[in-house]
Amino acid sequence: MTMSAPVEVRSPFLTACAGVTPQHTPVWFMRQAGRSLPEYRAIRSGVGMLESCSRPELVVEITLQPVRRYQVDAAILYSDIVLPLAAAGVGVDIAPGVGPVLARPVRTAADVEAIPPLDPDAIPYVPTAVRELVATLGDVPLIGFAGAPFTLASYLVEGGPSKDQAQAKTLMRRDPGLWRELLDRLAQISATFLQVQVAAGARAVQLFDSWAGSLARRDYDAFVAPHSAAVLRAVGQSPSGAAVPRIHFGVGTGELLGSMGDVGADVVGVDWRVPLDEAARRVQPGTPLQGNLDPTVLAAPWPVVAAEVERVLQAGRAAAGHVFNLGHGVPPSADPDVLARIVDHVHAWRPGD
Amino acid sequence: MTMSAPVEVRSPFLTACAGVTPQHTPVWFMRQAGRSLPEYRAIRSGVGMLESCSRPELVVEITLQPVRRYQVDAAILYSDIVLPLAAAGVGVDIAPGVGPVLARPVRTAADVEAIPPLDPDAIPYVPTAVRELVATLGDVPLIGFAGAPFTLASYLVEGGPSKDQAQAKTLMRRDPGLWRELLDRLAQISATFLQVQVAAGARAVQLFDSWAGSLARRDYDAFVAPHSAAVLRAVGQSPSGAAVPRIHFGVGTGELLGSMGDVGADVVGVDWRVPLDEAARRVQPGTPLQGNLDPTVLAAPWPVVAAEVERVLQAGRAAAGHVFNLGHGVPPSADPDVLARIVDHVHAWRPGD
Repeated sequence: MTMSAPVEVRSPFLTACAGVTPQHTPVWFMRQAGRSLPEYRAIRSGVGMLESCSRPELVVEITLQPVRRYQVDAAILYSDIVLPLAAAGVGVDIAPGVGPVLARPVRTAADVEAIPPLDPDAIPYVPTAVRELVATLGDVPLIGFAGAPFTLASYLVEGGPSKDQAQAKTLMRRDPGLWRELLDRLAQISATFLQVQVAAGARAVQLFDSWAGSLARRDYDAFVAPHSAAVLRAVGQSPSGAAVPRIHFGVGTGELLGSMGDVGADVVGVDWRVPLDEAARRVQPGTPLQGNLDPTVLAAPWPVVAAEVERVLQAGRAAAGHVFNLGHGVPPSADPDVLARIVDHVHAWRPGD
Repeated sequence: MTMSAPVEVRSPFLTACAGVTPQHTPVWFMRQAGRSLPEYRAIRSGVGMLESCSRPELVVEITLQPVRRYQVDAAILYSDIVLPLAAAGVGVDIAPGVGPVLARPVRTAADVEAIPPLDPDAIPYVPTAVRELVATLGDVPLIGFAGAPFTLASYLVEGGPSKDQAQAKTLMRRDPGLWRELLDRLAQISATFLQVQVAAGARAVQLFDSWAGSLARRDYDAFVAPHSAAVLRAVGQSPSGAAVPRIHFGVGTGELLGSMGDVGADVVGVDWRVPLDEAARRVQPGTPLQGNLDPTVLAAPWPVVAAEVERVLQAGRAAAGHVFNLGHGVPPSADPDVLARIVDHVHAWRPGD
């Protein structure tokens, strides 16, 4: 952080996010911290999910584990998208094998009004962990992250994970005013969570709108986009005035890519369904893309994996900048050795290959 | 079935499937038979799912229930996509609230070789029910249906419903030869199941590839399309030589619509994520479309429902023919009165509205 050279020279990840071609294509993996690593499972033994996210020494160690193993080009803070909700005082926990579970679903105006704002002082462990990580990571940027208002709303209204977000979408259509109030509150929570990370040294952020893909674009634009835009507007700059690239991602969002860029993202994340050259046509010209190897490819024999990695790299040339990633999170069953090999493969690849 | 006038005059549904504009836009609902109707729940009380599909008197009654209630323009046979697997001798049952559950997942060459072909004589209750339905329905066509090979394979390989079809896709990539053998066997089962329905009088068929949306188009084309094409090739004509329109549908298949038409579908079903005018650009010119009201709209206040229905109807004008439907199955919580009102609204609508 004290270098005089532009960050672009040091970080292929930040270079690609700025729309400039770096010396090698940068790579990191969504969910690289946690889940599939044996050293993660060892350290998490007997520690609840949300508890593990609130103990700085665990956050630091788990965030660093994949960086050590894989030499990825970015670290991503170990946390959970419902952590800021819990920290704000919403009754939510993470049930192993299920996901976030609400003590009580949010359905009424009173339920919405009871959602408190997030006070940065409620998450002191986040800046503590971020500062230590930034100091340790050196030239490897730390990505901060948060869940987008729609995805947080889905968990709150459904009361847990859901296949079709039917309850959330029903509230959205039945009472647009209450919906706006709900998403305003969640946007404040998301924005504050990201601001805390950026203020402590995160050099990029990713906004996860995991469930936005259940929406038609017209509904996304009308009911979701303004709130995600508010979150992204809140975090474009570091305290020192450096640009903080904002990555925006959701699964199954092929129809929404243009809108997800237009709400103020610097980089659009793409799942595996849309080839990156096609995705490049769906966003504003000049928008860097992140993605998009199908995570189920990880279980294939290496020659198949290598061919798919190369296909993604070739298609990524159509984008203004390409950050290699999976098209969704690392599956719990992923073999770490395959991920390591992918990193090497991406780093060794050159556009002429 | 004994009319001398062309069926088009009598059936707005068959007219639209033939790419001709009928007097009113036809409408039916995926999953209209079953689930949300109180008269269905009453008749199913104490009867297992697969058992209910194999008792002709129940199949007839459940198939007719929504036709009576809604005056929809087509009936769809009450059955289940795993029924032909069970009838062929695969150990599968439907667990309430879960879905199809396999006694033992299919993973090895021996498992695949143990999948028997479907003998039409193993499902005598299907032609019995179809014949009685056709006699009762008169001018209202009966749609036959089957699950497509990929979706059947997903259930078999995963051992039940799955979020990402990871096991199925892994088998597909690890052992393409075994995968082809598996899908060949399933295509025979699907095709036979449809042929039995058509031979007994079904006047259209729908091939459900419920989970195909988890595939990138390249994978769909390489690993799935030839097998779905084989199924569709087997059922284009009735015994009397009349065209039997083949509808092809899957959820989240926005990227696949072109391919799903190209494998031999006469009508492409579209989920709610892709507006029909955009879908019309993704299929061959002249392809009629079916869809695509977001099922979660059903719970909204009527003015919202009506506006969304009209939006779908307007967008459907871009297609060579439009069969109004939901963009996925009727949710169990759907209010039958809302569906009835939608049918009236669609029937009353005229393109100039």
